[in-house]
Amino acid sequence: MTAVSATDSILGNAAALACRECGAQYPIGPRYACDMCFGPLEVVYDYPNICRDTIESGPRSIWRYRALLPVPDDVLDTPNMEPGFTKLIRADNLARELGMRRLWVKDDTGNPTHSFKDRVVAVALAAARALGFRVLACPSTGNLANAVAAAAARAGIRSVVFIPADLEQQKIVTTAVYGGTVIAVDGTYDDVNRLATEIAGEEEDWAFVNVNVRPYYAEGSKTLGYEIAEQLGWRLPEQVVIPIASGSQLTKVDKAFTELGKLGLVDATPYRVYGAQAEGCSPVAQAFRAGLDVVRPVRPNTIAKSLAIGNPADGPYVLDVCRRTGGAVEAVSDEEVVDAMRLLARTEGIFGETAGGVTLGVLRKLLANGQLDPDAETVVLNTGDGLKTLDAVAPVVTPSATIPPSVEAFREVIEQLC
Amino acid sequence: MTAVSATDSILGNAAALACRECGAQYPIGPRYACDMCFGPLEVVYDYPNICRDTIESGPRSIWRYRALLPVPDDVLDTPNMEPGFTKLIRADNLARELGMRRLWVKDDTGNPTHSFKDRVVAVALAAARALGFRVLACPSTGNLANAVAAAAARAGIRSVVFIPADLEQQKIVTTAVYGGTVIAVDGTYDDVNRLATEIAGEEEDWAFVNVNVRPYYAEGSKTLGYEIAEQLGWRLPEQVVIPIASGSQLTKVDKAFTELGKLGLVDATPYRVYGAQAEGCSPVAQAFRAGLDVVRPVRPNTIAKSLAIGNPADGPYVLDVCRRTGGAVEAVSDEEVVDAMRLLARTEGIFGETAGGVTLGVLRKLLANGQLDPDAETVVLNTGDGLKTLDAVAPVVTPSATIPPSVEAFREVIEQLC
Repeated sequence: MTAVSATDSILGNAAALACRECGAQYPIGPRYACDMCFGPLEVVYDYPNICRDTIESGPRSIWRYRALLPVPDDVLDTPNMEPGFTKLIRADNLARELGMRRLWVKDDTGNPTHSFKDRVVAVALAAARALGFRVLACPSTGNLANAVAAAAARAGIRSVVFIPADLEQQKIVTTAVYGGTVIAVDGTYDDVNRLATEIAGEEEDWAFVNVNVRPYYAEGSKTLGYEIAEQLGWRLPEQVVIPIASGSQLTKVDKAFTELGKLGLVDATPYRVYGAQAEGCSPVAQAFRAGLDVVRPVRPNTIAKSLAIGNPADGPYVLDVCRRTGGAVEAVSDEEVVDAMRLLARTEGIFGETAGGVTLGVLRKLLANGQLDPDAETVVLNTGDGLKTLDAVAPVVTPSATIPPSVEAFREVIEQLC
Repeated sequence: MTAVSATDSILGNAAALACRECGAQYPIGPRYACDMCFGPLEVVYDYPNICRDTIESGPRSIWRYRALLPVPDDVLDTPNMEPGFTKLIRADNLARELGMRRLWVKDDTGNPTHSFKDRVVAVALAAARALGFRVLACPSTGNLANAVAAAAARAGIRSVVFIPADLEQQKIVTTAVYGGTVIAVDGTYDDVNRLATEIAGEEEDWAFVNVNVRPYYAEGSKTLGYEIAEQLGWRLPEQVVIPIASGSQLTKVDKAFTELGKLGLVDATPYRVYGAQAEGCSPVAQAFRAGLDVVRPVRPNTIAKSLAIGNPADGPYVLDVCRRTGGAVEAVSDEEVVDAMRLLARTEGIFGETAGGVTLGVLRKLLANGQLDPDAETVVLNTGDGLKTLDAVAPVVTPSATIPPSVEAFREVIEQLC
């Protein structure tokens, strides 16, 4: 599929980095922006001949797809979190409520730290070690921080996580418990990010997963696409709804579907990709509606904090994918987010985080406005766990009744509730 | 292995209920105590001829062992949470710190609601449906409530969960979000329990998972034992450390190991079973130390709330198992619990709940006092998720440093931290 060769690559079949803007190629190494045009770099492969059997006989984790990831051949030999191969759940109850024919939830709450970030961090860590980095780092306010601190602990390497000092205590605890270094920064998340990028430029052996090893990190999201296809019995779904933060995940699922088709692992049937944002941070949805190719940054204001990136790096590529495949990008209000979280929990017993609510909320909206086909097989992503965003639903989720401890009181109230 | 026959059983190979005290047998049905002596009933089986291949080709959930569970043959056809087959993690970092040779963590945080309760609830639900119950219910303060509400939602049946009215809001949210009926009771947990037992006696089509369908429910814990053996490559470990709440889980892991040996699925090699309690609720450990056969109830006072059962129903059976196998029962302080939670997170990237801290803390103590062999292959259970018991570690887990957003400030602090 590419002319590059991975013969000497230390990262498996990853052959080179290519600029997504100008196409300039660079050898595999610790770089992330094009020297020519400053465009983002992406991993290109010397694709192997690979068959379904090889994958199916691999480990029950993202590493079953290691031949299609930028990781060293011996990745299985190093202790790691073994994320991925989470459940693809046939959501018949939910489909019935929505008037859909066949709906699946790809449920990443089953990952080790209960979000999809375990996937991308595992790939970043494997690549970073091979490239000679000695510290795993990131700026983050939540899921990414958890995943980096946990993965570094398992791998036995140092982690340094930068967080805003005013972060809720519970989010600090869920990162600091893994025993890495957690540096609280007096400032906004933007300040934290800026500081991390500066440090990444100075500390040569620090891999900031979402900064200087981002091209490798981002590839980890392809595994969502691979798993969906394999779990459907080596088929592509007709429609897939994906949340947008930086937008990287959406573009990588599309990349995965395309690769699988080209490699002959699935029939390259058409599919439509839909992107989901919260209205309080919907720069890509706004650009989609306006028919623009560029994404105008916004200042986020939504309960869906894990998606609250006001200037999404992959926004333009998301627009490309959604338009090319005949999908769309939509946004829902925080109220619709909470409604959708409750709907998913009530119908399927899956308590997703706000990002899951955004994605299901958008699916619902797309159905209502006719952009999503209720009769086409659809997969919706739930990328994180409701346990991490309890505040979102707490105000509206309360006991059905409060009673004194007597059977009489129970009888009285249960009749009203039935 | 038993003379009973499951020919007509509606619950697969489950053939009868037998009193654990007097041995009286009853047909499979909605009963849980012996009419003769009031002893607890246990499921006995007409064991099938079953080979490893059959199990290995089954689903990646507890249902791969359905032939050894009291569930209907068509259990796979009904929507359910598909719990189990969680990771058995080779814990080399932790083993190194503890001076052990080969240590594994059976990590049940990977279950759908992130505790082992998904296993027992799934079996209870499957049995309850087959027995004609129409409502799934329980008294609970935590993990069980989550599991019941979620499982009922997925199965599309009604749930009624009874909780103490003064429960922390976050625990109410994580149950109520699934949309079942949640009844808050003004009173202690004991009051809630009593009320539930009274109602269980009156509402004929309500299955209180841990009350009137308890014999079936309890069998779900056998799957922990089956999985450990299968994941070790069809071998029994030499030592296993298990938390004690009611004590049922420990006795069922022992039952599972025994069954596997008798069925020829593993070599019946000797193993030692160790039980773990928190000092603030250690009636079984106290009885073990005192050489008693009876367990004197205590009033619980520990941060390990999911283990805080002051009058554990299976306490005497736990003593039997631990003594028969050459194991022990120990208890650790709340401080040791927190230390162990942090140790597990720091070395293996696993954030377990307080129960996990109890279990690992006890393992550590047993090593120190020479009761556990550091050279024998050992499995320690982590039965729940740290995300649900954040309060336990929050006071002692803080950022490493707080700095202003400048590289200079970072340099200053990072040198001190290195």
